[in-house]
Amino acid sequence: MASPAPAVYVLDPRGPPGCGVYCVLIMRLLEQLTLPDDLATLQPGKLRQLAAEIRGEIISTISRVGGHLGPSLGVVELTIALHAELSSPKDKIVWDVGHQSYAHKLLTGRLSSFDTIRRFGGLSGFPRRAESEHDIFGTGHSSTSVSAGVGLAEAARRASPAARGHVVAVIGDGALTGGMAYEALNQAGHLQTPLVVVLNDNAMSIKKNVGAISGYLSRLRTDPALFRLRRDFERRVQRFPGIGERVYAMGEQLKEGVKAALVPGMLFEELGFTYIGVVDGHDIEALRAHLRRALAIEGPVLLHVKTVKGKGYRPAEKAPDRFHGTSPFAVESGEVLPSGGAAGLSYTEAFGRALVELAGRDERVVGITAAMAAGTGLDLLEQAYPDRFFDVGIAEGHAVGFAAGLAAAGKRPVVALYSTFLQRAYDQLIHDVCLQDLPVVFALDRAGLVGEDGPTHHGSFDLSFLRVVPGLTVFVPKDEAELQGMLATALMMDGPVAIRYPRGKGEGVPLPEPITPLKGPWLEVLREGRDVLLLGTGTGVGLAREAAHLLAEQNLTATVVNVRRVRPLDEEALLRLVSQHAGLITIEENSVVGGWGRACSRSWRGPGCRARQRWSDSPTPS
Amino acid sequence: MASPAPAVYVLDPRGPPGCGVYCVLIMRLLEQLTLPDDLATLQPGKLRQLAAEIRGEIISTISRVGGHLGPSLGVVELTIALHAELSSPKDKIVWDVGHQSYAHKLLTGRLSSFDTIRRFGGLSGFPRRAESEHDIFGTGHSSTSVSAGVGLAEAARRASPAARGHVVAVIGDGALTGGMAYEALNQAGHLQTPLVVVLNDNAMSIKKNVGAISGYLSRLRTDPALFRLRRDFERRVQRFPGIGERVYAMGEQLKEGVKAALVPGMLFEELGFTYIGVVDGHDIEALRAHLRRALAIEGPVLLHVKTVKGKGYRPAEKAPDRFHGTSPFAVESGEVLPSGGAAGLSYTEAFGRALVELAGRDERVVGITAAMAAGTGLDLLEQAYPDRFFDVGIAEGHAVGFAAGLAAAGKRPVVALYSTFLQRAYDQLIHDVCLQDLPVVFALDRAGLVGEDGPTHHGSFDLSFLRVVPGLTVFVPKDEAELQGMLATALMMDGPVAIRYPRGKGEGVPLPEPITPLKGPWLEVLREGRDVLLLGTGTGVGLAREAAHLLAEQNLTATVVNVRRVRPLDEEALLRLVSQHAGLITIEENSVVGGWGRACSRSWRGPGCRARQRWSDSPTPS
Repeated sequence: MASPAPAVYVLDPRGPPGCGVYCVLIMRLLEQLTLPDDLATLQPGKLRQLAAEIRGEIISTISRVGGHLGPSLGVVELTIALHAELSSPKDKIVWDVGHQSYAHKLLTGRLSSFDTIRRFGGLSGFPRRAESEHDIFGTGHSSTSVSAGVGLAEAARRASPAARGHVVAVIGDGALTGGMAYEALNQAGHLQTPLVVVLNDNAMSIKKNVGAISGYLSRLRTDPALFRLRRDFERRVQRFPGIGERVYAMGEQLKEGVKAALVPGMLFEELGFTYIGVVDGHDIEALRAHLRRALAIEGPVLLHVKTVKGKGYRPAEKAPDRFHGTSPFAVESGEVLPSGGAAGLSYTEAFGRALVELAGRDERVVGITAAMAAGTGLDLLEQAYPDRFFDVGIAEGHAVGFAAGLAAAGKRPVVALYSTFLQRAYDQLIHDVCLQDLPVVFALDRAGLVGEDGPTHHGSFDLSFLRVVPGLTVFVPKDEAELQGMLATALMMDGPVAIRYPRGKGEGVPLPEPITPLKGPWLEVLREGRDVLLLGTGTGVGLAREAAHLLAEQNLTATVVNVRRVRPLDEEALLRLVSQHAGLITIEENSVVGGWGRACSRSWRGPGCRARQRWSDSPTPS
Repeated sequence: MASPAPAVYVLDPRGPPGCGVYCVLIMRLLEQLTLPDDLATLQPGKLRQLAAEIRGEIISTISRVGGHLGPSLGVVELTIALHAELSSPKDKIVWDVGHQSYAHKLLTGRLSSFDTIRRFGGLSGFPRRAESEHDIFGTGHSSTSVSAGVGLAEAARRASPAARGHVVAVIGDGALTGGMAYEALNQAGHLQTPLVVVLNDNAMSIKKNVGAISGYLSRLRTDPALFRLRRDFERRVQRFPGIGERVYAMGEQLKEGVKAALVPGMLFEELGFTYIGVVDGHDIEALRAHLRRALAIEGPVLLHVKTVKGKGYRPAEKAPDRFHGTSPFAVESGEVLPSGGAAGLSYTEAFGRALVELAGRDERVVGITAAMAAGTGLDLLEQAYPDRFFDVGIAEGHAVGFAAGLAAAGKRPVVALYSTFLQRAYDQLIHDVCLQDLPVVFALDRAGLVGEDGPTHHGSFDLSFLRVVPGLTVFVPKDEAELQGMLATALMMDGPVAIRYPRGKGEGVPLPEPITPLKGPWLEVLREGRDVLLLGTGTGVGLAREAAHLLAEQNLTATVVNVRRVRPLDEEALLRLVSQHAGLITIEENSVVGGWGRACSRSWRGPGCRARQRWSDSPTPS
């Protein structure tokens, strides 16, 4: 069990510390109940107590290990209400993106292992099918829950009555920007799929949402006129029968029309959904009542729930973007604890600063991101040149198509995304950008392994799926200074370019002032040796250097080469290097299958091939 | 110039043949005018004459060379109206999907080369930037035009007044199902981008549209009550002032509410667009008037135009799906001309029949496509088991997420798509299906080169981008019988499987009855030799056989191997084969970069490596 002390602090910050610990150990419902089964019969007061305990547990644990605090705090009551009204896993709950699933994990048997969350071998920070039968569908990327929900619900509809359960998809208003969610709503409305979509509306994705839909939801949420109007209308129609008559005289349709105008959520109604809302997402009883109503309706229902991101923890409520995902922090102040990691600039910051400098020199340069402004460093461009910054919301496909349009009109767009999310714009990259040879620059942050966020977030396929695209140049910097130079180079080129770089701190190298384009050599020899050729790219270059040191201790000399441009490979230079060595090792932070290491095989010619062949064998089977 | 005789037939089927030819040669406006510039000042009667000429030219040419007839016939008047009101290329027109751009091509300098359309070295069947300055943005895949349009329009907004032009995106109601279009509408509404989106609504994509949005458009188009109601309301409010007063007593908002209820297109209005519609898409004058109105509005406008697919050619109007894309046909009857090609079953039919048979044996099997039911053969499943067939509309991302949901609920979904369109669901394939090891089968038609549709439609990257995905099995059949066996195998496996096969006729081999699972060997030796090892996959197997014959004439014996399973490769068997030969050639219809041929390099060991190395070198540089 997690140490309860910080939880007590939150529950009762005024009590004497010793007593608090005692109370929690004896009294927590979280340990006493059989969860989630007992929830259905628990009294409202007890449910509220449980909510406070869950909140305390989340704050306490995440303050120590880091994680997605704000999203999970926002849905504590919603999670309790869902598990109280549903019988999981027969009834199925799909959590969109999944970073809000901590309360769900605590309610479904994972309390004792909760402090292993987001650590190697521990709980995933997202729902994961292999982890629990209650994690019916794994998530991590955004806007997938309605699709999965339609699939689960259409399957349930075809199951025997005994096996048939309810299906609920919980999706945030940010995720609703993603086209996939709309595609799924469109089908559910058409099929009249028995599915409840809970719209968890906190007016935020990672930061404040953008887009017309967001404006629409905001009007629904906040327009008191609309709600007063509905109430008034219902009263007045009764009070002044004349209106009803005259309306009737204009035809039944007008009455329907008036009614429709006063029904909030008409956009969803037009898509074939029954709209229910807006419900206070922190009122368990109200949530349960509306959920029951929604579950009783035959076709698809959109239940609009208003929540507060970071609810119940003052610092997170005040700075929800800062607490969307956080490293360990002091519970009392909310301040991040010193990590002991390297200081220095991150790749993200180096990119953001370079983009601002280069945009200052070339007014054609614009930046585009998909709800990752701070995460990609594009917020710096937003501050410097707000008119040349675009956040399209969670909509990677459109982000790339939009960039292609800008490029076709003479702009020099830089699309900044996490590597893993580019997978969602692969077709647009091929079809809209590269096939037309448009000068779009892809700045791919979080390439390679990303650590705590796990498999859904690794950028471990990009070199493979990018290498195959005709006309695309692919750069990989070994440090943040090269990243800046490569960005300058890319912005001067006439075709599409991708630059991929890792998450986190740079290497602490001095940065060029002013930034100048990197012009090659694309195979940079960092150290000369005779026995073995070490070809590294990105983070692989550092590993190659380390390996060279270790080999030197064994009296083997290694040549270390920084492969800066992975596509096209400078085959002539590569051949020359290869012919001078008896062994070759390639190092890249990417799937071995389809990686550039394989491309090097084309250069093994002449005598000594057998030896080189053995060297090149990758440790992982393809 | 194309032979005018068939055009005359259409223009005046009753006239004596000789005279008709004479008239056309002398009189056609298409040759007389300077296009598109002259359109702006042409009289309505002349514009209608021009429309008839364009229609005749399209029917005449496509009846001889084949192509997308219905979509282009549907927008002849719209295209004329657009070019009359706009000044291309300063004003920019983006054609979604692009198969409706034939009239646009005829109006922008490509009349004389029109009969080269869709042929090697000729005009593209889609807009293509390299072909004309009037093709401002290349298309081919669906739902991209609004994204590109937002990019072009946001760039125009930032240009000098002298350089600033209008931007119009023409999108069909089918393409509007695609999430990317929604993502783009969402941003345009938010930014209030100066963009006119022309919704070309023919109630069809390739066949009848599906989805809730489609239902919504249909209500807008066809609900006479709604339109009568609007007219009535405006009249009656004037006639009975009492209503106005009472409405006022209920607050200004109610009046707004009533108004909103009576405004069609509220869904688009909610997204921030001004909605104008529904306009008759075959009335050039009406189109021009409404376009002028739309272009004068500052923010984004949705102009809803109702068109008839195949308009003006009776057989195409009667069977719009048959004439969506057609091979050469007899103009008089509409009947397809004998192609002289092989008879035999197509891969598509073999797949469709196999799926029906296998679905009959296992009730968990369901089929999913994205507006490609006939194109993938899934229409056979629809006929046999309508309840187990799903067409999600043009929405590949959702199709795959939906399949993942079905699989998570115990179904065995088969997602049938064209290879190139799977690119739009790459993230869902990785994140929703393969990362969760869900048993979804991907049936990928049109893999490899597709011929006339050209670069946007080639399925030439799939082996590369599929091979990198962990946990995915990839089968490639050499003929339609293997395809059926592989489908049976795939449906018995517990993880994800992709089967990719080419467009068109099969090899004419006998089909197994009943269909039995193909169980290996995954490297099938078809012919044994000593000198060289020919490894082929899919269409490569036939080439390998041919090559073996040619080699035999030169007294070289070749072993021919059918690589049926590309991932995982049977490395042990491969090694054994390689060790028995002095030379190795791999043949696949896929990009060399990342293809499985590269994976074979891992097997070159032992003596003779140098020779094998040389054999293996691929002809295309990576």
